[in-house]
Amino acid sequence: MRELRSSSFWRAVLAEFLGSLLYTLLGLGASLRWAPGPPSVLGAALAFGLAQATLVQVLGHVSGGHVNPAITLAFLMASQLSVARAMGYLLAQVLGALAGAGVLYGVTPAPIRGTLGLSALHPGVGPGQGTVVELLLTAQFVLCVFASFDDRHDGRPGSASLPIGFSLALGHLFGIHYTGASMNPARSFAPAVITRNFTNHWVFWAGPVLGAALGSVLYEFALCPRPRSLAERLAALKGAPPATEPPPAPPAEPLELKTQGL
Amino acid sequence: MRELRSSSFWRAVLAEFLGSLLYTLLGLGASLRWAPGPPSVLGAALAFGLAQATLVQVLGHVSGGHVNPAITLAFLMASQLSVARAMGYLLAQVLGALAGAGVLYGVTPAPIRGTLGLSALHPGVGPGQGTVVELLLTAQFVLCVFASFDDRHDGRPGSASLPIGFSLALGHLFGIHYTGASMNPARSFAPAVITRNFTNHWVFWAGPVLGAALGSVLYEFALCPRPRSLAERLAALKGAPPATEPPPAPPAEPLELKTQGL
Amino acid sequence: MRELRSSSFWRAVLAEFLGSLLYTLLGLGASLRWAPGPPSVLGAALAFGLAQATLVQVLGHVSGGHVNPAITLAFLMASQLSVARAMGYLLAQVLGALAGAGVLYGVTPAPIRGTLGLSALHPGVGPGQGTVVELLLTAQFVLCVFASFDDRHDGRPGSASLPIGFSLALGHLFGIHYTGASMNPARSFAPAVITRNFTNHWVFWAGPVLGAALGSVLYEFALCPRPRSLAERLAALKGAPPATEPPPAPPAEPLELKTQGL
Amino acid sequence: MRELRSSSFWRAVLAEFLGSLLYTLLGLGASLRWAPGPPSVLGAALAFGLAQATLVQVLGHVSGGHVNPAITLAFLMASQLSVARAMGYLLAQVLGALAGAGVLYGVTPAPIRGTLGLSALHPGVGPGQGTVVELLLTAQFVLCVFASFDDRHDGRPGSASLPIGFSLALGHLFGIHYTGASMNPARSFAPAVITRNFTNHWVFWAGPVLGAALGSVLYEFALCPRPRSLAERLAALKGAPPATEPPPAPPAEPLELKTQGL
Repeated sequence: MRELRSSSFWRAVLAEFLGSLLYTLLGLGASLRWAPGPPSVLGAALAFGLAQATLVQVLGHVSGGHVNPAITLAFLMASQLSVARAMGYLLAQVLGALAGAGVLYGVTPAPIRGTLGLSALHPGVGPGQGTVVELLLTAQFVLCVFASFDDRHDGRPGSASLPIGFSLALGHLFGIHYTGASMNPARSFAPAVITRNFTNHWVFWAGPVLGAALGSVLYEFALCPRPRSLAERLAALKGAPPATEPPPAPPAEPLELKTQGL
Repeated sequence: MRELRSSSFWRAVLAEFLGSLLYTLLGLGASLRWAPGPPSVLGAALAFGLAQATLVQVLGHVSGGHVNPAITLAFLMASQLSVARAMGYLLAQVLGALAGAGVLYGVTPAPIRGTLGLSALHPGVGPGQGTVVELLLTAQFVLCVFASFDDRHDGRPGSASLPIGFSLALGHLFGIHYTGASMNPARSFAPAVITRNFTNHWVFWAGPVLGAALGSVLYEFALCPRPRSLAERLAALKGAPPATEPPPAPPAEPLELKTQGL
Repeated sequence: MRELRSSSFWRAVLAEFLGSLLYTLLGLGASLRWAPGPPSVLGAALAFGLAQATLVQVLGHVSGGHVNPAITLAFLMASQLSVARAMGYLLAQVLGALAGAGVLYGVTPAPIRGTLGLSALHPGVGPGQGTVVELLLTAQFVLCVFASFDDRHDGRPGSASLPIGFSLALGHLFGIHYTGASMNPARSFAPAVITRNFTNHWVFWAGPVLGAALGSVLYEFALCPRPRSLAERLAALKGAPPATEPPPAPPAEPLELKTQGL
Repeated sequence: MRELRSSSFWRAVLAEFLGSLLYTLLGLGASLRWAPGPPSVLGAALAFGLAQATLVQVLGHVSGGHVNPAITLAFLMASQLSVARAMGYLLAQVLGALAGAGVLYGVTPAPIRGTLGLSALHPGVGPGQGTVVELLLTAQFVLCVFASFDDRHDGRPGSASLPIGFSLALGHLFGIHYTGASMNPARSFAPAVITRNFTNHWVFWAGPVLGAALGSVLYEFALCPRPRSLAERLAALKGAPPATEPPPAPPAEPLELKTQGL
């Protein structure tokens, strides 16, 4: 509760609200169809990717620039975020995405609105297949976010923003054909609310959340394990001050470039 | 007035003139239609974005590489630029953009010139909607410029140029369909003068200027507040020497990656 | 054999398996044809390039993020990788690519599967020409990987991932027309197994492997020679501990920016 | 003459030969037309840009990664390169480009070869207009190269490669419509020799060379002046050892971010 009285907490929640608003507005808007002919997969993929890159660049020092419930849950599962902060982020992300889709509705001529970039399965792709696709796309994205923010690799947001954004663009280059490519439940929830179309909507929560869990576990326990005790993890979830951050026990093995032979 | 006698002032003004010339020439030129068929939104968006990125890379150490009245006004509102320097920049930007559009007129075959990349509202998008679009697109761009140049995040132009350019490209991927995507009043003013077409031209000043104000206030007062007294701000606007830059009072809270739980 | 008992060895092998699965899945998937009309060379090139960039960003500190037998062989030939580690990587890469193609087969509707992105020579391009193309494309890619990971140039994966990915995208922009652009035998092997089509398949092993050898020799012996004795090289191949890494003899000539006149 | 006996000289010349071979091969090859329909301006622009980026990444520490006579002349005019080194680079660049175009001729099916990416003026664009376009495009590119390699801005090739490559891609997004976009006389010379078509060929030497001169003078004397005496400049041109590089006189004004008010 002490955390709720800090200004940094509220600045971070505001950042997640504004970021989710902009992400949803810009990504969905760039996916609309203004002319006949095939939609531009490349244009939509770059718009979502560059929106994420810009928001990590802007908000990385404020909130981490998640703007995505799946990313927030991944950091929570890795006990790198307190429960209070995760709750605040999730609420801000859902409200921000709704606001962004609402602004898009307001500024777009009626004949162009279509389904406002609603996430939908391609004919021939079943909900199980769609969930697997969303799971795998989200897992690679979460892995890239974790690696880019890992303070053991001098991962500063300055150099993190473009790799993170391009990882999301990559997910869209593949996934737009299968599921419309979400990797972000808030981005899928907002147009579903506005168009009142919740067909297969659970896919866009189950896939990203399971993918976030997979990516988080893979990174924190298999690929780059972090030696932290259960007590340290619980303290981080409770929002304890990071007094215990530099742990007394040194990491068993320093992280270094592993291309050189060992 | 002392500032007007420094060579760095005049080098910065020259930089803004040359930069605005190149930005307008290259961006507008890459938007022209050389063949029938739908225009390339992606090509135009990348041309504007990469022009901004290149100019930040080249001019970041000379003038900041604004080449955009909205950016200059945003830095002025944040009292990070003296009034004299802002006036010099604005004049250089407008003259540079006119020169760039003039060069474009001269090197382009007459049948291709069209409206020289004039900013115009899409049929069905009203001036109010257009202003909101320009406002929001400019706000995200200004936020990215501020974050990338923030010396509290070791934001050096070397790593700032690409994120800033891609943020501008993102704005074009969304905005080309709505307003032609300006975010830069000088870029819109120049073809309006040459084609003598000022229909709804106010949108391309009001939107970016209001967006710059919003982005500046959000960043400096809400997201990453900077503890400066009113006297310090006034001194910066007057162009006082930055003797007071390392303020005696340390920032209340160091800026750090906020993904780790607090 | 001592190496096989270290957890870092097995984490690296796991990383290469997962990375090759994702590389093959995402790259091949983004190359499928969902609509009539010409295929998107740019979309496929960016998908492969951004997949490599993301995996270098994620796995650079774990295994180097090779996900490609040609890269592993290049590091082996430069004696920067032990023989045991190279064997483990190669096996993991081939199995990972098969798994990735299998997942792609499972999530893709039958009419869309086509040849699953099988590498094939363009009509009019002979196997000799195809081998030369794959050789040259792989050589430039290996050179970029070596330069980006060279610890004499402060080449940290953080800044290495995007240049490496864009070098691979470049190879695709050229090579898709000639050979489908492989540069990675595992990526070509997997769809050949699933579609049971091994026509000219040797091209996609011979070209990349010869290109990797050429790039490795050019970099290590001509462009940026590394003064290491034969004994040191043999020890590295055997997986000796890097106790000899900071060699007592200083490099004859420090590597510096050579644009300044000498 | 002493310089000709250093191995670093010959490694740099080899680097420029190999780099020019790859640049010409990959750039021209990605510009060929394999299918009817409009050519892909974006694909060709990215291929040239990413080729330059990759070669700066690979060769930046060896030769600077010029692979372009205009860049070499710009560094010579700024007395940042000895005359001997510039001569070696120029010869290597022209021979490398010829070799690259020859390889392209050999690996490409006859019906696809066309004019091998010959630089040519668009109908309606006169040679004077074409020269101005090449001049301006090359000037922005040279400015970006100079700023990215400027050791006063901690411009290391690691972070220089992508901005330099994207600046070249930008030039192509604009210039392909006007002149085919050269900015590199060696790249234009090679297909002219092979197709024996020298119509307006002087444009592709005059434009880039004048643009290089303009960029060099603007950067070194107006935007970021470097306080060096004539004797120091002459010594650098003669290839004197860089003993005088850290000059005793400190720069009159340290280069810093100029966005903060002065």
